[in-house]
Amino acid sequence: MNESIKFVLLETSHPGNIGASARAMKTMGFSELVLVNPKRFPAAEASERAAGADDLLYEATVVETIDAAISDAHFVLGTSARPRHLAVPEWSPERAAEVLAARLRDGPVALLFGRERSGLSNEELDRCQAFVRIRTNPDFSSLNLGAAVQLMAYELRRHLDRAREPAGDQAQSPSIERPTHAQLELMYAHFEETLSQIDYHNRDEPRLLMRRLRRLFNRSDLELAELQILRGMLSAVQRQLKLRSEFDGN
Amino acid sequence: MNESIKFVLLETSHPGNIGASARAMKTMGFSELVLVNPKRFPAAEASERAAGADDLLYEATVVETIDAAISDAHFVLGTSARPRHLAVPEWSPERAAEVLAARLRDGPVALLFGRERSGLSNEELDRCQAFVRIRTNPDFSSLNLGAAVQLMAYELRRHLDRAREPAGDQAQSPSIERPTHAQLELMYAHFEETLSQIDYHNRDEPRLLMRRLRRLFNRSDLELAELQILRGMLSAVQRQLKLRSEFDGN
Repeated sequence: MNESIKFVLLETSHPGNIGASARAMKTMGFSELVLVNPKRFPAAEASERAAGADDLLYEATVVETIDAAISDAHFVLGTSARPRHLAVPEWSPERAAEVLAARLRDGPVALLFGRERSGLSNEELDRCQAFVRIRTNPDFSSLNLGAAVQLMAYELRRHLDRAREPAGDQAQSPSIERPTHAQLELMYAHFEETLSQIDYHNRDEPRLLMRRLRRLFNRSDLELAELQILRGMLSAVQRQLKLRSEFDGN
Repeated sequence: MNESIKFVLLETSHPGNIGASARAMKTMGFSELVLVNPKRFPAAEASERAAGADDLLYEATVVETIDAAISDAHFVLGTSARPRHLAVPEWSPERAAEVLAARLRDGPVALLFGRERSGLSNEELDRCQAFVRIRTNPDFSSLNLGAAVQLMAYELRRHLDRAREPAGDQAQSPSIERPTHAQLELMYAHFEETLSQIDYHNRDEPRLLMRRLRRLFNRSDLELAELQILRGMLSAVQRQLKLRSEFDGN
């Protein structure tokens, strides 16, 4: 699938934020960075904060108007950390990612990020099919630009991967040898025998102790190697008791 | 609800990342920042990048060891951008947020973030009930520390808000008493002592045995009552060894 998702940053003041945005995009596998009238670019701080994602900076498209930035997009979403009292629908990041992922098939889509201080203007939001509101602490909604890009890139990647993967990726994880039910029962019998030899009981309700151990180990989803360690411990206890009893008997 | 979620940053090199983490936490309504051996702190770059979240920096707890950082936590999660070939379960951020949100009712929980370059060591991961893997571009997995904190804070907030909205019949399920990290460490010490007394070792690699036990019990998500049963068993073994040795001595 051709994944053309443009991350459009509008009139960014701090070049460090451009670098951080490039890094955030690249960690999630995106590469199309579009800058509308950046205050200062290229800049050393941008490259520094990009930390290895500077290829995105070299290849960034720099344009003068928002319309030039999104001209070929089939779907445009704005972002905001504040609620906007507008007729533009407000979506959660999840919902936005879901729609963008679906819309990608139709052609390029764009995600707009506003200025650090003032965000997107109403005129800019009017170019968007919807806007994404990233919910923040009402007392401190100062989401960093790079952080907003990171969150949206993460949500998009999550939805794109989900759409692509047929069922579990668990299939790839290495197979672990698990005990059979019979092996588990032998372990519980071994526990019961040893607990009795060390005189450890629940006086009120003798069966309760074994039930609790069963619950614990059933929940633990034991590996065969772990079961062997536990049985090894029990055997070592029994060996010690026997050894010391033999000395005692002499 | 008392939301005690500790964000624990281990041996952070760049103070700017501490500031960015504080800002990321605060935008999502979290405040408990714990720093384990930061390379440089307090520092001007931290306050700059915190951009208004510097109250979190003033109130940050600075400690020298990871154990001090998480001693009262009832649930500890590590984070990693790389897959780890360990028996510690790997969770997605969503799954992790879901579990942490549920566990908050039992007491404080902790989320560990490793060093910028090298992440968390195996010994550190051994203290975690699970680890969260934030999936990244396989060719560029260089997720910034502040960005990782932002993503986790965002997922947690999302799940906490969701959990708070009515509907939930989960609200009624009884809270279970869980051991603190310090209680878990005492149990492991008790195991280690007893295993040595019964002469049970892994000859090839002595530390491996304890690591495997840690992994098993971390994964099992022990209840306090279960921990007490296990310690009761260990004490019973020690009592028997002592009794028989005393007879032997007579």
